[in-house]
Amino acid sequence: MNAQEVKNLIRGDRLTLSRILSQVESQSEAGRQALEALFPFTGRAHKIGITGAPGAGKSSLVNALTRQLRRQPDAPKVAIIAVDPTSPFSGGALLGDRVRMPDLQRDPGVFIRSMATRGALGGLAAATEAFSQVFDAAGYDIILIETVGAGQAEVEVVNLAHTTIVVDTPGTGDDIQAIKAGILEIADILVINKADRPGADQSVRYLQAMLEMGYARSGTAGHHASETVNSVAAEKPAEPWLPPVLKTIAIESQGIEDLLGAIQAHRKFLLESGTWQVKERQALQKAIQRAIAQNLMDFWEAKITPELFEATLQSVVERKLSPESAAQYLLQTIQGL
Amino acid sequence: MNAQEVKNLIRGDRLTLSRILSQVESQSEAGRQALEALFPFTGRAHKIGITGAPGAGKSSLVNALTRQLRRQPDAPKVAIIAVDPTSPFSGGALLGDRVRMPDLQRDPGVFIRSMATRGALGGLAAATEAFSQVFDAAGYDIILIETVGAGQAEVEVVNLAHTTIVVDTPGTGDDIQAIKAGILEIADILVINKADRPGADQSVRYLQAMLEMGYARSGTAGHHASETVNSVAAEKPAEPWLPPVLKTIAIESQGIEDLLGAIQAHRKFLLESGTWQVKERQALQKAIQRAIAQNLMDFWEAKITPELFEATLQSVVERKLSPESAAQYLLQTIQGL
Repeated sequence: MNAQEVKNLIRGDRLTLSRILSQVESQSEAGRQALEALFPFTGRAHKIGITGAPGAGKSSLVNALTRQLRRQPDAPKVAIIAVDPTSPFSGGALLGDRVRMPDLQRDPGVFIRSMATRGALGGLAAATEAFSQVFDAAGYDIILIETVGAGQAEVEVVNLAHTTIVVDTPGTGDDIQAIKAGILEIADILVINKADRPGADQSVRYLQAMLEMGYARSGTAGHHASETVNSVAAEKPAEPWLPPVLKTIAIESQGIEDLLGAIQAHRKFLLESGTWQVKERQALQKAIQRAIAQNLMDFWEAKITPELFEATLQSVVERKLSPESAAQYLLQTIQGL
Repeated sequence: MNAQEVKNLIRGDRLTLSRILSQVESQSEAGRQALEALFPFTGRAHKIGITGAPGAGKSSLVNALTRQLRRQPDAPKVAIIAVDPTSPFSGGALLGDRVRMPDLQRDPGVFIRSMATRGALGGLAAATEAFSQVFDAAGYDIILIETVGAGQAEVEVVNLAHTTIVVDTPGTGDDIQAIKAGILEIADILVINKADRPGADQSVRYLQAMLEMGYARSGTAGHHASETVNSVAAEKPAEPWLPPVLKTIAIESQGIEDLLGAIQAHRKFLLESGTWQVKERQALQKAIQRAIAQNLMDFWEAKITPELFEATLQSVVERKLSPESAAQYLLQTIQGL
């Protein structure tokens, strides 16, 4: 990526942006160089993660929220990253793109990109982080990261975000499952979407009760961000953030104004409490650690021969050597670690 | 873990088993040594992963399947690993255990263990693998691994399994979301649970059509296991496995006999096609790689001072250095990599 390309990207050229994203996604050397060149221009965008069970209406909510954002007086530029677990049937991105609205696709202040990443564990988080940096450098004010489910990988993805929105639908009884899935503790804002369905108010009350229970039990705030502030930058006790529980009907754009209000309030909270800075620092720390792990593994893979690895694996298959002993043996063999 | 303890475990002593599992879960040195001592006794158990969206009734299905297994003439010993993403509200395991049936808890041939693992990426898969090895050495014939969701971490977990069962409920329209979540391609057996609800037959037909579409598109079999066989042990084309789609009503134990039949048929397929051996080899390969990565990171962390890391991180926070450059700088500093 040369200086002209950097200039073009920062000036908002969409073709350059598309090309850089593809380079980054394919983990090519060009992509790596682009991230290097763009890194000094990052650190400004508000990253917002949206997660929740399949069928909760996350895509519709992202669409409605984007329109609402674009209608604001300052008309912030919005990037949407749709993280789809890869499917050989859909190609991952296919179905994700179909539900996007044409008006958003035409808006020059909106950029939508699906991502279907298979591969190394941590690949999803690393790729999302890389995309965010490109959008950040390209002047996108808001980056919406939409991800399915509440598994560990999704938690990693939303950990990149400044603000995490967890979307659920009105439910009876299955709510207990949502809590089992451990999504409550990652939420900065909870949304009951499809709130015209029966049981919406009960769901809101139920979630509020659960949140207050966690809040009471932890002594201060049952909430990771505040805990982080207390432990890392403990100059004064941080104002706790109790996640609001909102009702929306995304396909009718109902409740979206309140949702935007909650997002803005959370941003204000982050900045005033110092949590924003702590989160930035943690994200960069993780990025360094990921890069170290990758460099170490690359170094190791270059040193070891396939024959040696296969022979060692065979001993493990035959139960003569445990995986741990095999690892230690291989590392000793290549460099006396 | 001394020789007497190994003997006790293999003889079926539940107290020893509990203690070893706790040692393994806490990643203590004792746990590491136990895995070393037990590894030669592993490689026999049939590992079965059960996954699907929250509310699909996975726990009920696991309960019903366990009872059915225990009623077989050979009464196989069954271990249940319930993988719960950690929640600070529930403590993760709490809710998971509540739905287990007392009759199973009393059965000396059944051992139930919940796991709520936070921590390093890959921790869930590594811990599940470690638990499986302990149960395997302790003579459990069947290991049922129940996991919530279809995120990347869950896919990692079920990748450890020989047979993966994906559970869904009758649905209309949301099915497209299930496919988005990429769960079809990991399924060896698909189950529509709560099949007394409306739409069960449509859901079955829909999933069958999707499977056959994927099957047709991939030329041979739209199925990862078969592809693996073809690419890794390609002596003769493997018989393809088209995942059956079954209906169950788990809480009434309906359809469980057919499900057990499908599991046994899949086991037979795995052994006769050579896929079983390929999966074992892949799992051990991953275990070696995980151990190598862990050893490398431990080595690195022991070498670098907190002061050096903090100073480097500060340069990254100030955008003077990118995370990649920071990683390379740190690695060069400690050993000239």
